Amino acid sequence: MLKVAIFGASGYTGFELLRILATHPGARVIAATSRQYNGRAVSDVFPSLTGFYDGLDFSDPEDRTAVKADIAFSAMPHGASQEVVPELLRSSRVIDLSADFRIHDPKVYNAWYGEHKSEGLLKDAVFGLPELYRPSIKDARLVANPGCYPTSAILALAPLLKAGLIETGSVIIDSKSGVSGAGRGASLDTSFVEVSPGFKAYKVGAHRHTPEIEQELSLLAGTEVSVTFTPHLLPVSRGILSTVYASAKKGISTKDAHGIYQEFYGRERFVRVMPVGKYPDISQVRGSNYCDIGVYADETRNRIIIVSVIDNLVKGASGQAVQNMNIMSGLDEAAGLLYPPVSI
Amino acid sequence: MLKVAIFGASGYTGFELLRILATHPGARVIAATSRQYNGRAVSDVFPSLTGFYDGLDFSDPEDRTAVKADIAFSAMPHGASQEVVPELLRSSRVIDLSADFRIHDPKVYNAWYGEHKSEGLLKDAVFGLPELYRPSIKDARLVANPGCYPTSAILALAPLLKAGLIETGSVIIDSKSGVSGAGRGASLDTSFVEVSPGFKAYKVGAHRHTPEIEQELSLLAGTEVSVTFTPHLLPVSRGILSTVYASAKKGISTKDAHGIYQEFYGRERFVRVMPVGKYPDISQVRGSNYCDIGVYADETRNRIIIVSVIDNLVKGASGQAVQNMNIMSGLDEAAGLLYPPVSI
Amino acid sequence: MLKVAIFGASGYTGFELLRILATHPGARVIAATSRQYNGRAVSDVFPSLTGFYDGLDFSDPEDRTAVKADIAFSAMPHGASQEVVPELLRSSRVIDLSADFRIHDPKVYNAWYGEHKSEGLLKDAVFGLPELYRPSIKDARLVANPGCYPTSAILALAPLLKAGLIETGSVIIDSKSGVSGAGRGASLDTSFVEVSPGFKAYKVGAHRHTPEIEQELSLLAGTEVSVTFTPHLLPVSRGILSTVYASAKKGISTKDAHGIYQEFYGRERFVRVMPVGKYPDISQVRGSNYCDIGVYADETRNRIIIVSVIDNLVKGASGQAVQNMNIMSGLDEAAGLLYPPVSI
Amino acid sequence: MLKVAIFGASGYTGFELLRILATHPGARVIAATSRQYNGRAVSDVFPSLTGFYDGLDFSDPEDRTAVKADIAFSAMPHGASQEVVPELLRSSRVIDLSADFRIHDPKVYNAWYGEHKSEGLLKDAVFGLPELYRPSIKDARLVANPGCYPTSAILALAPLLKAGLIETGSVIIDSKSGVSGAGRGASLDTSFVEVSPGFKAYKVGAHRHTPEIEQELSLLAGTEVSVTFTPHLLPVSRGILSTVYASAKKGISTKDAHGIYQEFYGRERFVRVMPVGKYPDISQVRGSNYCDIGVYADETRNRIIIVSVIDNLVKGASGQAVQNMNIMSGLDEAAGLLYPPVSI
Repeated sequence: MLKVAIFGASGYTGFELLRILATHPGARVIAATSRQYNGRAVSDVFPSLTGFYDGLDFSDPEDRTAVKADIAFSAMPHGASQEVVPELLRSSRVIDLSADFRIHDPKVYNAWYGEHKSEGLLKDAVFGLPELYRPSIKDARLVANPGCYPTSAILALAPLLKAGLIETGSVIIDSKSGVSGAGRGASLDTSFVEVSPGFKAYKVGAHRHTPEIEQELSLLAGTEVSVTFTPHLLPVSRGILSTVYASAKKGISTKDAHGIYQEFYGRERFVRVMPVGKYPDISQVRGSNYCDIGVYADETRNRIIIVSVIDNLVKGASGQAVQNMNIMSGLDEAAGLLYPPVSI
Repeated sequence: MLKVAIFGASGYTGFELLRILATHPGARVIAATSRQYNGRAVSDVFPSLTGFYDGLDFSDPEDRTAVKADIAFSAMPHGASQEVVPELLRSSRVIDLSADFRIHDPKVYNAWYGEHKSEGLLKDAVFGLPELYRPSIKDARLVANPGCYPTSAILALAPLLKAGLIETGSVIIDSKSGVSGAGRGASLDTSFVEVSPGFKAYKVGAHRHTPEIEQELSLLAGTEVSVTFTPHLLPVSRGILSTVYASAKKGISTKDAHGIYQEFYGRERFVRVMPVGKYPDISQVRGSNYCDIGVYADETRNRIIIVSVIDNLVKGASGQAVQNMNIMSGLDEAAGLLYPPVSI
Repeated sequence: MLKVAIFGASGYTGFELLRILATHPGARVIAATSRQYNGRAVSDVFPSLTGFYDGLDFSDPEDRTAVKADIAFSAMPHGASQEVVPELLRSSRVIDLSADFRIHDPKVYNAWYGEHKSEGLLKDAVFGLPELYRPSIKDARLVANPGCYPTSAILALAPLLKAGLIETGSVIIDSKSGVSGAGRGASLDTSFVEVSPGFKAYKVGAHRHTPEIEQELSLLAGTEVSVTFTPHLLPVSRGILSTVYASAKKGISTKDAHGIYQEFYGRERFVRVMPVGKYPDISQVRGSNYCDIGVYADETRNRIIIVSVIDNLVKGASGQAVQNMNIMSGLDEAAGLLYPPVSI
Repeated sequence: MLKVAIFGASGYTGFELLRILATHPGARVIAATSRQYNGRAVSDVFPSLTGFYDGLDFSDPEDRTAVKADIAFSAMPHGASQEVVPELLRSSRVIDLSADFRIHDPKVYNAWYGEHKSEGLLKDAVFGLPELYRPSIKDARLVANPGCYPTSAILALAPLLKAGLIETGSVIIDSKSGVSGAGRGASLDTSFVEVSPGFKAYKVGAHRHTPEIEQELSLLAGTEVSVTFTPHLLPVSRGILSTVYASAKKGISTKDAHGIYQEFYGRERFVRVMPVGKYPDISQVRGSNYCDIGVYADETRNRIIIVSVIDNLVKGASGQAVQNMNIMSGLDEAAGLLYPPVSI
């Protein structure tokens, strides 16, 4: 039985790790840290988990010397994570859910996030998108779990970019995310009354997930890819839908494009390609680790439209982290993750 | 043209006063204070108001000596309001939207809210429920605008209590409120993700609106009325629905009970009694100053059920405050308030 | 491996059975009927289930002679179910999710639902609330799965009624349900636009779950119990919260009342009694088979308030049906049902 | 006082006309037809309107000979409208809210909608977007009120296209609409449970508003414009947000682009250009006739992003229809339309 520890366990990604790991057949949570709830029972803070973590209290993050975990999840905010991860690495393999180790180029990191306190680790971290980097993840000591928007965008574009079929300067990613993506901190911007009957674009032209998306798309294409990425805030708790537009290098039919996706993702257990003419709804992956994708080619305008959906807290964060844990530990990659979405 | 000032104008009831007064034919907002947004244009903070308050900036609440308003609305939190109202009263008639002046008995106030800093004013304040206290409101210098839950509960029960038809010890008020009732402060409890797929009771047996409800119901009945009041949090922005249960002293039919409501509210412009067999939905008063009421008598069990709905920010707060302003100022009571709800 | 068939599998309770059974360790769905979708793949109709029912198409309900199921779930509407169940019983044990076999007294059934076409079966059907009738369920050929509202109300009241602590004429059940309780048929009343910013009471004094609730409460109390039951429609997909009011026969403290609940439900795996002073939110059971209960005693007014929550599609329907199936089949009662709610 | 009649008054756009016209200072509804509700009081069908249409019953659409309206609104579905409009035109000027008269070219109409029964009227109909066609609307006998998506897209692009600043082949319109856009008919697709936790693209590459958008953009640009238009369904009742992407012919800064919008819409009373760096939320126009627009120029990628929001039922339908009525009748263009949104 794998022993796992969750650092920063009282945010939404931490909570979601607790939810998913509660029934994992091969792993057991031995510690969950939270500065804010230090000393309180997990089920006292999260009543939905009553009965699943009897006896487990949130502990102080400083107590981590006591922790002898095989896998340490860091679910702390970026900036905080990079301070803690080096120490965690001394005793455990680490899966970091923050943005701290996703960018390979320190200069790019600095430009978007500021100075990095553990810059030396950037080159060792493996980008934890199993569909692209499964072999490296298997042996990694430090996995940088991808961002939610990047996961939806990269999985949407990978088959076409890899096949060299699209104009790399033409990519537009119009993404819409549920509110849990903003984290669990109290804020007027994410209050029910402000969000509830609304919908808006935000950080137009300036969202920090842009360099992460561009890094991975460029690696896939083998050449620099620059994208326009516009995030929007949906009045739902969970889910990201990305509508991705790209110009085809030469004419391609929907049927051919669809075939490329089926081929690329045919053996993947968490990517489901929709039939031709169908496009996914975020509800159909709610609470699950799936990424569902639909594809359409507009031959008249030489443009391809890809629609991808994920649950931002699962495939976009904690579910993918558990998938990585499974791979790292030699477990079935889908262990603890194979159940139907709670779609309604 | 009436000159009005709004103190604490950046909370939800302050905002709602701005919204309603923007098109009021007989009043003009000359000042809107906000410590938080001091110096910022109203439309910068509330983009929906763009074009309605050109040139009006939020001002410091300390600048109030400069204000020469005929009517001053205090939309500050309870506790803060009682510190400011005495000074406002020197130059203006005051409508206070907080709980500070609603309770007549200082002992009751102390028991539920703590010490009162302007206790001497309690006896002068008029409870601003026009349907019950119209004549006193007309001449009041200080109007205590009723709470949202109390407005829905008192209007639901007034006809029967006044007629002496119900057992005063039998009253149960099961109320459900939209999230805006909790105010505009950032809080995890009112965040979208926490509220959104949920519904819960809160402050069971202990909500501060209980003494306000009991005070008014007792005055109506002419004898002490003690109630069970259970508030719940609805995943909607606006609206309160109260389902009120009471035992009838003697058998009464739905038709007779309905007739009593029609008689009692027949000339009221903001209380609409639904036809027999129909019960109101909170959506049907959304954005408006109406209180809609449906009534049912269960003759078998000798129990009467009354369902009332209001928009907590309008009839439950700022609309009622404007209605009070109209009465105090000799304007048409419905001025600026007569438009259909935005029900869908 | 248990072979199960679902009749009427394309409504919400049928869908939910498919969702739950997809990962059940001891049962396998061998047939799912749907007149509307006859011949279409399950995952074509319900894309969220893609990958879980490969090869399973909805079949014609008339094909049931072909079915050799150990357990047949009837998820058809009331009225339709009673026509089919007699035939199903020839080859399978049956769990009926409709209202058709819940009422023991044919006269009561007739008064609320009209004529019964299989009246003779009423006396054989076991009311499928495991917490009350586990031993009878074990051996039943026909289990009448309880209604959603009744489940929430009966579990809320059972401990106190059984202990004889409340005035049986005083019970008021104020229930609020998510929209999925109304079924999957298209209707203006359950359309997003009509429901979304709203909240209302409906069928005041006249809901068909009343006799089912009264039957079970009377059996618990050992004397006739008559209740006031008011259902309301919540703008959420899933969840029922019932706020139940009852007068105590003699003074009882919250602590004592709470102790009675802990004692009564101490060994139950799907009823979680909240700590004193805490009340459940429907979100905390979302997608799960739990019923969470909070209790409060108002000693001044001699009144007890119980708040219970369930997911109407799980503990209120399909989850409870699977729990019954487990009991009937000698499996672990919690098989396939023990995972944390998707609470956010 | 203008006499107006509404044909098809019980759908959402008909209802919205009733809501808006209830307080219009210069117009009075003398007839509202509805086959479904023929003979029922308006307030019986729409309780929110209680008190505003006392004495007005829905009438049979066949009774229209009796109608002597100055302005007839046709709020019937496309197809139905074209059968009725010729007759309405004999006695009234007509504003048609369906798609029937928006397309100038009969061949294009036929290709997207099928045969047209009043094809001869197409050339006479004026496209009712006041910001572009005010002078023609003034004298029109038949105004084709624009579609909701087209209104949001055309207003977003008009300033740049008119100025010849963008590559006409580069336009991508990613639109998100509230559910009321789908009309009031009962449908599983628009039911609360299906829509509520979801978000999806629909009619990818095939939505009927595409030719209407292309017609108007082409007229603005003076050359054929072909667009990619992807509609999405938002889990909100009202509101459309369009995120529009276009390549700039030559480098342009956000400041310059913003200046062009301010210039273009400077005198418009229902288009509000947001300050540089701000982007609108659909909530900020809820219930109002405003179109709010934000603009951003990505100089690195030579791409312009415009975000526009409207309330699909107001500026996207019935509000714009009333604006057209005002213009046609020589009333103040903003009569009955100038009030703040109900933004929360």
